[in-house]
Amino acid sequence: MARERRRRRRGPAESEAQEVPKAPAYIKRKIPHYSILSDDELSVIEENAETILEEIGIVFSEDQEALDILSSAGASIDGERVRFPRGMCRKIIQDSAPKEFIQHARNPERSVVIGGDNMVLVPAYGPPFVHNLDEGRRYATIEDFRNFVKLAYMSDNLHHSGGTICEPVDLPVNKRHFDMVYSHIKYSDKAFMGSVTAAERAQDSVDMAKIVFGDEFVDNNCVLISLINASSPMAFDGTMLGALKVYARNNQATVVTPFIVAGAMAPVTAAGVAAQSLAEGMAGMALTQLIRPGTPIVYGNFVTAMSMKSGAPTFGTPEAGHMMNISGALARRLGVPFRSGGGFNGAKMPDAQAGYEAANTIQATINSSVNFNLHTAGWLEGGLCMSYEKFIMDADQAGMMRVSVEGVDMSENGQAMDAIREIGSFSDEVPKHFLGCEHTKKNFKAAFYMSDVLDDNSFEQWVEDGSRDTAMIANEKYKQMLSDYELPPLDPAIDEALLAYIKERKDSFEDSNI
Amino acid sequence: MARERRRRRRGPAESEAQEVPKAPAYIKRKIPHYSILSDDELSVIEENAETILEEIGIVFSEDQEALDILSSAGASIDGERVRFPRGMCRKIIQDSAPKEFIQHARNPERSVVIGGDNMVLVPAYGPPFVHNLDEGRRYATIEDFRNFVKLAYMSDNLHHSGGTICEPVDLPVNKRHFDMVYSHIKYSDKAFMGSVTAAERAQDSVDMAKIVFGDEFVDNNCVLISLINASSPMAFDGTMLGALKVYARNNQATVVTPFIVAGAMAPVTAAGVAAQSLAEGMAGMALTQLIRPGTPIVYGNFVTAMSMKSGAPTFGTPEAGHMMNISGALARRLGVPFRSGGGFNGAKMPDAQAGYEAANTIQATINSSVNFNLHTAGWLEGGLCMSYEKFIMDADQAGMMRVSVEGVDMSENGQAMDAIREIGSFSDEVPKHFLGCEHTKKNFKAAFYMSDVLDDNSFEQWVEDGSRDTAMIANEKYKQMLSDYELPPLDPAIDEALLAYIKERKDSFEDSNI
Repeated sequence: MARERRRRRRGPAESEAQEVPKAPAYIKRKIPHYSILSDDELSVIEENAETILEEIGIVFSEDQEALDILSSAGASIDGERVRFPRGMCRKIIQDSAPKEFIQHARNPERSVVIGGDNMVLVPAYGPPFVHNLDEGRRYATIEDFRNFVKLAYMSDNLHHSGGTICEPVDLPVNKRHFDMVYSHIKYSDKAFMGSVTAAERAQDSVDMAKIVFGDEFVDNNCVLISLINASSPMAFDGTMLGALKVYARNNQATVVTPFIVAGAMAPVTAAGVAAQSLAEGMAGMALTQLIRPGTPIVYGNFVTAMSMKSGAPTFGTPEAGHMMNISGALARRLGVPFRSGGGFNGAKMPDAQAGYEAANTIQATINSSVNFNLHTAGWLEGGLCMSYEKFIMDADQAGMMRVSVEGVDMSENGQAMDAIREIGSFSDEVPKHFLGCEHTKKNFKAAFYMSDVLDDNSFEQWVEDGSRDTAMIANEKYKQMLSDYELPPLDPAIDEALLAYIKERKDSFEDSNI
Repeated sequence: MARERRRRRRGPAESEAQEVPKAPAYIKRKIPHYSILSDDELSVIEENAETILEEIGIVFSEDQEALDILSSAGASIDGERVRFPRGMCRKIIQDSAPKEFIQHARNPERSVVIGGDNMVLVPAYGPPFVHNLDEGRRYATIEDFRNFVKLAYMSDNLHHSGGTICEPVDLPVNKRHFDMVYSHIKYSDKAFMGSVTAAERAQDSVDMAKIVFGDEFVDNNCVLISLINASSPMAFDGTMLGALKVYARNNQATVVTPFIVAGAMAPVTAAGVAAQSLAEGMAGMALTQLIRPGTPIVYGNFVTAMSMKSGAPTFGTPEAGHMMNISGALARRLGVPFRSGGGFNGAKMPDAQAGYEAANTIQATINSSVNFNLHTAGWLEGGLCMSYEKFIMDADQAGMMRVSVEGVDMSENGQAMDAIREIGSFSDEVPKHFLGCEHTKKNFKAAFYMSDVLDDNSFEQWVEDGSRDTAMIANEKYKQMLSDYELPPLDPAIDEALLAYIKERKDSFEDSNI
């Protein structure tokens, strides 16, 4: 009790202070958009995209149905190459694709709005390896997968459970999607992503979602969002098209993403990359709208530069920032939500390189008005590795992203003229500072984003605390979070039905002993 | 010879490839400005600044001459407090202060333009400590000072030699400015900053500059830029005013900078900080123009948030980014060059925190159209420490800043439609990538900024190279640079005259035995 009282007395007039607001389910951008190109320059790129669609076309591999659908809509088919009359894709998209949509989470408070001025921050996707300070780098397992789902669930500043948050390579390739989707449902109540590695796995994702949300709800609402990568340059493969068709038919969202390392899958120049990406993205998005008009889509962008010495992709570079910014502006003009961004970096450990490159990309993400920000937390080593420590650091940065895009309070309280008058009118002899003034007392709790990973103590205090670098602090924090983790409530009947579905489906495979 | 030939053959058609352009003396911004506030909102802040100047006023301490000058110009004096009629300071500044000006370097090729759409990147300023991986943290010496001048001289992406690049605490306080100014002249040929710790030391800086540039040249041109911090809130002290007067009288540039940790020297809100800063800055800048109309000035901004737990300043935060952005917009509206930015961070070592926070600030710098970017390289531990390794990392980021602000090539070559046609028209069976196409061959050398500190190799290659983190790579690099360093040419007569001046001045002090 005594300690309690002492603590209470430490803050200035705590009872009057504004509380830190609860973390929202997603972010609303209040600062203006920013385009590095003018409207005229963006029109040039749009015209170039139309020229690519008209003259060169996009290859739709191993999918006669897709070719038939596009042909019926007016495209010309040459083998597997599809050429589109100028403006065809844009018109199809603008006629029916929603500008923004809700992705429902099983906890309604966690549902997110994707598109418009909203921003949804999502964990990294796809790494086959994990890294932590204790073990170094090793292959990821389903236990790692569950751990990262738990960490994302517990991170106030992440709004989504993600998809293949890491690749559980200890499970057979043809069955691991069951465990991944189940883990998202079981260990989190945030929205999540479906499998795309085969059409039947996409269907399994939809069927599992139906167990959770009900058949009719799923048919009328978006509960899954899934990542369809183009096979740049200027192609989609049969696997991705198969998954795309399943999700589109089921009214579930797809993110159609040209995956481009500039210099390899596209030209080395930003304006060239932007035109090619837009052409690829519009072709894929148009197909979804032809399959089911109004099905939610997102224009995705994964573009990065490459080392012209080693050929490796590079991250956090100014050129990648330019490409992201242009694509964001093109998405706004097209009127579709935009996916890009993330804590990209090529570092092999959560060191200064990881910090510089991730922060550069995060700021480019903000400048590009990204709506669905995949790869927000955990990404290391060019996406090959999921880092426990970097996940914690990036989730902290995600909190700063919210503050950044929410902008500046221009109310009377924000202008703070009363505070300036109070302090400014002291006589010259009185020590003047704002720490004790009424305005500070009222606002101090919510005034500044407070990191719990970055150390702002004095050097002496930092030495006393063990001279830890950021990775060591993050290491302690993720272990504490996993130890504090509590399962979100899940209707036992749904849980049982999911497990029964998974058992039946797994047993149906020939290699059922795996 | 054989090796030479082999090397030459490695790149694709090197003779046709565009060379990487030589690093420019300073950066020209080609991307649009960005303001998070609207014009109306900026007007509100400007009105608040006028209200502060009119109602509360600014204290000019221990300087009767400054009070007399301001009084003659129409301000009202109340003790040491000066109140300004609305619009007075703005009018004085706009009537005579240059929108941009040249700061001459002793090597004319290194002269920089400060203001307008130009950006000058300057090393960190003021740290009493240095840090390197071998020794950890210790007090700085004049040898460290010389080392950092050499490193800045050798860094293509830094445009300026800076000022108190670190504090040589092994030299007596009243004489160290001689050694600092001499080191900038001797070990670099880039532009540099003068002393501000006393009026006579400012005069020494001017006198030494006259030895290098000639009396008449100095009287007619800017060869020194110096940092005048306000004693926020709403005050200037006698020391800073003394230095300001010397430089203004001698037609040398001053950066008038409210130094603000929000919550201590100003309110906790961005709009409040911005109004108070503008009031302080305008009062100081107006004084320079009254002393000598047309003397070059820069509106400076050092604003940061504070930890409401520990009271320590924090860095790389979204709130600090907001404050910088608003002040940049206010400087453009006032029509004066803007100083802010830097590789700020509160880290105690060049770790992930240092990277995240520095990169966040660097991106805020770009978004704020900073003209004179103090603290670009080396800053660690909230400015208390100059890090050898971080200097190298930040100088690398400085190269990326150039690429960022230069924007996107929208020429035919930049649009790259020929490359897209070339690759896109392959038959489906042929492997398609852009590595070998003509456009890539022509552009690959200049296409992407290439870091020499950040590792983009594969994990396996990185292990083979010694599993080094960024700090270890930077450690090797700075030592190599210091070992490769060569003195820039300096007229021996000037060198002798400088040394003679310093000896005479030092001998004139009572404590001449120090």
